[in-house]
Amino acid sequence: MVTDPITSTTNPRIKALVRLRDRRERDSTGRFVIEGYRELSRAIQAAIRIETLYVCPALYLGDNEAALVDGAQRCGAEIVAVTEEPFRKASYRERPEGLLAVAPRFGTGVDRIPVSGNPLVLVAESIEKPGNLGTMLRTAEAAGASGVIVADPTTDPFNPNVVRASLGTLFTVPLAVTDSSAAVAHLRTTGIRILAATPAGTEAYYAVDMTGPVAVVIGSEQYGLSHVWLDAADAVVEIPMPGSVDSLNAAMAAGILLFEALRQRA
Amino acid sequence: MVTDPITSTTNPRIKALVRLRDRRERDSTGRFVIEGYRELSRAIQAAIRIETLYVCPALYLGDNEAALVDGAQRCGAEIVAVTEEPFRKASYRERPEGLLAVAPRFGTGVDRIPVSGNPLVLVAESIEKPGNLGTMLRTAEAAGASGVIVADPTTDPFNPNVVRASLGTLFTVPLAVTDSSAAVAHLRTTGIRILAATPAGTEAYYAVDMTGPVAVVIGSEQYGLSHVWLDAADAVVEIPMPGSVDSLNAAMAAGILLFEALRQRA
Repeated sequence: MVTDPITSTTNPRIKALVRLRDRRERDSTGRFVIEGYRELSRAIQAAIRIETLYVCPALYLGDNEAALVDGAQRCGAEIVAVTEEPFRKASYRERPEGLLAVAPRFGTGVDRIPVSGNPLVLVAESIEKPGNLGTMLRTAEAAGASGVIVADPTTDPFNPNVVRASLGTLFTVPLAVTDSSAAVAHLRTTGIRILAATPAGTEAYYAVDMTGPVAVVIGSEQYGLSHVWLDAADAVVEIPMPGSVDSLNAAMAAGILLFEALRQRA
Repeated sequence: MVTDPITSTTNPRIKALVRLRDRRERDSTGRFVIEGYRELSRAIQAAIRIETLYVCPALYLGDNEAALVDGAQRCGAEIVAVTEEPFRKASYRERPEGLLAVAPRFGTGVDRIPVSGNPLVLVAESIEKPGNLGTMLRTAEAAGASGVIVADPTTDPFNPNVVRASLGTLFTVPLAVTDSSAAVAHLRTTGIRILAATPAGTEAYYAVDMTGPVAVVIGSEQYGLSHVWLDAADAVVEIPMPGSVDSLNAAMAAGILLFEALRQRA
């Protein structure tokens, strides 16, 4: 760190960081923000290219941040020190951890989803809440899923709250972002069965064979699955619920289906 | 509504509402806050006694609030109108819905958990995040669980963020709050098997019989289960994860276990 620290909340780089909270800004710059120790550790582990790492040592939690910063620097990141006030302004969190990076968005073509080795894929269509999308990525990672297809995104996966709720698994799970028709075509071509989950499903999810290549498809919190998926599905399944239906959130439904697939495969 | 509306942010009743965000205040007054249309609907449905309902019609979302207010009034609630500024101050939300009530805390004795009819119980020990505890309640409701025991609470279930994340299922799922030893004693006495879930479990959760009376026990996000539960457990199970272990959150683990119990019982 040879440069002087940023000390002003009106510094143009701080303002640019704040602007990246907006999707339009992320779309037009092709960049996004990664904040937090765990998230950045996973990003660096996954060889995500970090352009700039803003650091505020006064806010470190004591997690071995020095090693993380060294690692980022070795991989070519510019390291910029920031004093506490401007860092807090740039941060998306109530309790910032003193680490915040800008990275170019990485490729999210549908070819990133492995098609060999008995794929287990999660498709998340038009998910609205960043927390749900992040939890889906996190759960797919736990389940060792082959990948996650974010179809017709409402919330884009580079939203800072997705990065956060995913705990950085956004960088470790193979991720594709595409429209639903292209995703259906890809799954069809590669011989991956489509299991659409909806409260109006015709079979219980556990009555369906998930031991072969399969994609579990979950729809938006408010509108459920689109007809693209319902029409294309090899099976339309429900999660039988003795209680009230609206009590199962989208990420929870994804987890229940993914872990049922694992159970069947064990 | 015969009284004049509250128009000042320094009105003592507004200040009292703000203070109820603190657990100490809830403990000392024996009261808590229920905010939002869906949450209040479920509370009234479940015959939770509402002492006072603060309303700000300018903020209504158009959900048939008038019927809800009538219902609350018929059940004895005092209705107090509040103008927008003081209502926003009292509200816990970014987008308040114009409905916020104070209710006396209801009983949470362990005898509230039904012991007949092949019980399926969720035990949540020392959960730290209100969002997780709320999601657990919501998921238990979806699963039609007999009840939820909140053991050695770190976050108390009357925390406004638990009420919110539960979507009001806090009022519909039988709920007990107690210490872990008393909960173990209750489960033992009533012949409910104890299934403790931990990453260090000795059996896969799906290899264990959950068709009989069973309590699924999930520990805190940071520390896992205490020895009280690990020692008392009839089975110590794990959720096998091909991916990374810390990617499954506590509420998700609860959901996977509850829905596996339902699958086995189907």
